Amino acid sequence: MPDRLIAKAFAMGLAVLAGAVSPFAASAQLSGSGAPDAGPLMIARQGSFFVGGRDVRSDKLSTLPAYAPEGTITVDQMYVRYQVPATAAPHRPLVFIHGCCLTGKTWETTPDGRMGWDEFFLRAGYPVYVIDQAWRGRSAASPAAINAVKTGAAAPDQLPIVFSAGREAAWAIFRFGRQYPDVFPGMQFPLGAQAEFWKQMVPDWLASLPTPNPTVPDLSDLAQRLDGAVLVSHSQSGIYPFQTAALSRKGIAGIVAVEPGACPAATEPMTPYAGLPILVLWGDNVDQSPRWAPRLAACRDFVAAANAAGGKVEMVMLPDVGFHGNSHMLMQDANSLDVAHWLDGWIGRHVSAR
Amino acid sequence: MPDRLIAKAFAMGLAVLAGAVSPFAASAQLSGSGAPDAGPLMIARQGSFFVGGRDVRSDKLSTLPAYAPEGTITVDQMYVRYQVPATAAPHRPLVFIHGCCLTGKTWETTPDGRMGWDEFFLRAGYPVYVIDQAWRGRSAASPAAINAVKTGAAAPDQLPIVFSAGREAAWAIFRFGRQYPDVFPGMQFPLGAQAEFWKQMVPDWLASLPTPNPTVPDLSDLAQRLDGAVLVSHSQSGIYPFQTAALSRKGIAGIVAVEPGACPAATEPMTPYAGLPILVLWGDNVDQSPRWAPRLAACRDFVAAANAAGGKVEMVMLPDVGFHGNSHMLMQDANSLDVAHWLDGWIGRHVSAR
Repeated sequence: MPDRLIAKAFAMGLAVLAGAVSPFAASAQLSGSGAPDAGPLMIARQGSFFVGGRDVRSDKLSTLPAYAPEGTITVDQMYVRYQVPATAAPHRPLVFIHGCCLTGKTWETTPDGRMGWDEFFLRAGYPVYVIDQAWRGRSAASPAAINAVKTGAAAPDQLPIVFSAGREAAWAIFRFGRQYPDVFPGMQFPLGAQAEFWKQMVPDWLASLPTPNPTVPDLSDLAQRLDGAVLVSHSQSGIYPFQTAALSRKGIAGIVAVEPGACPAATEPMTPYAGLPILVLWGDNVDQSPRWAPRLAACRDFVAAANAAGGKVEMVMLPDVGFHGNSHMLMQDANSLDVAHWLDGWIGRHVSAR
Repeated sequence: MPDRLIAKAFAMGLAVLAGAVSPFAASAQLSGSGAPDAGPLMIARQGSFFVGGRDVRSDKLSTLPAYAPEGTITVDQMYVRYQVPATAAPHRPLVFIHGCCLTGKTWETTPDGRMGWDEFFLRAGYPVYVIDQAWRGRSAASPAAINAVKTGAAAPDQLPIVFSAGREAAWAIFRFGRQYPDVFPGMQFPLGAQAEFWKQMVPDWLASLPTPNPTVPDLSDLAQRLDGAVLVSHSQSGIYPFQTAALSRKGIAGIVAVEPGACPAATEPMTPYAGLPILVLWGDNVDQSPRWAPRLAACRDFVAAANAAGGKVEMVMLPDVGFHGNSHMLMQDANSLDVAHWLDGWIGRHVSAR
């Protein structure tokens, strides 16, 4: 085993020295099946930080004697975990933005234990930034509205809107099948590991937050720090990168909207998106979903309007480029790395290098 | 720049080939200041997963028309993110368990942007597992008790206990000073970056959960999977590794309790801890804290009782081994990597290799 590691590390040194291939380029790592080789991963730097945040003073922070009810907390900040590959010339950074009722976990190891898109794109040479939306996961919420009701200072109807998606209803939303527990023929989500997937779901405070969601200015902050990032959204967060671009185009090099919950309305001004490389990406069976078919149609209208106004927006249905059976959670589907490989190619063709 | 990277990668190949040093051993990476060299990090594998979890059926999951109130969710699971270094013979895995009102972020990049303990120990050759406690961060909570009150099905006093620690009260708990905004002389926490630290704090559902906290059986599951882990707790989670050992000693190779909120009572049976290498580690100014001084005293009693019963428990006050001014957040203090280096040595001396 040590011998194998030694040989690998040495080969890596030689390969880089020869300059023939980057040891972390997707082309060098992909096997025929689209699965990257499981060799070591070389990281230039990694870590985590927050962007945004707003101080709030409250006298409803706690109902426990051990913790004072009065004090100042910070909310609206967005947690960001990042890894930068030790490639000589890394690509533009990707910012991965999860959807409803989920966290940044969406992009990590799949429920059935395969490599997530975070690591795939890192191995393909991209600096990767995975966020937790404001008020979700490692990004703080505030308990003040709950404690106001608990202490009698506010009426029960003033409680925040906090919801979880039960798996039976989520089944159709994630398009595993028409309805629970039916499964679309050839559907690619690894249902054998669904128990692990349901563990990814967390309560969602979205409906208690203002519009735009605090995540949107946070994404703008992050994009400006990164000075040219591709914002990759999913589902409920689909509208955020568009709203971010409408705030400011600074720092945004492209948008990839994976099955967006909403695209900008076709009647809105299209100037925020002019000239920006944008991909709207869909899986399979979309037309068969009462939830998703109208969203797809509205996104088609947006794409037409944006392109009529000088946009560079492309909409791709995965079956049209040879991928069949993809669910709404296509970054976790059995063919997720093949789709990632295709997306790597799309970004390479459409998003300008630095 | 490419030249420098090429030279580094090649040197790494040669160094490993020669077998002279492990390129990621702490000894090779530490400068005189205890700060690891910022060279590339080689990862054998990384990812995330959940342990534990319990299905709950509820008709109070949502108050929104778009999401059904009825359904099944999973709670009590524990999110785990891990990285395994590409060292020929890695040390025993470390499991990092955060404290009250915080998440696994505790162990990552410090508020002032320095390397966290997660990366330090990875570079020192340990597989590193960072968790979010059950019902916190990326580990799901349930909104059902909130929605029961919101819909009038339960009284306001049935709301869950969810609290946040305001920074003014937390100041003394974290021992930045005797009280907000006083600062202990020579105190090591990077207060210049305190705004980033306050962003780490999240609401805590702890007091709504049973005893032992679901995190405890989850830690036992994880330790057994890892087959010999060192459980590193902090503050409120201090008692968890002891409770885990009391459930089962399987998979536990040692315990490091960093400023535990509680040690086992000295009157309890000490058999769960017999022969297990245990370190109880404290920073500075503990005796000057009305919150921490009694906890320190109780832990002293535990250490005496455990050792009288054949234990291998050591209690260390950092000032006694040459570190001064450490706060309760000593893994983020200005000298955090020096303390980590010392801890690496302690583990090496006390915890058996595989």
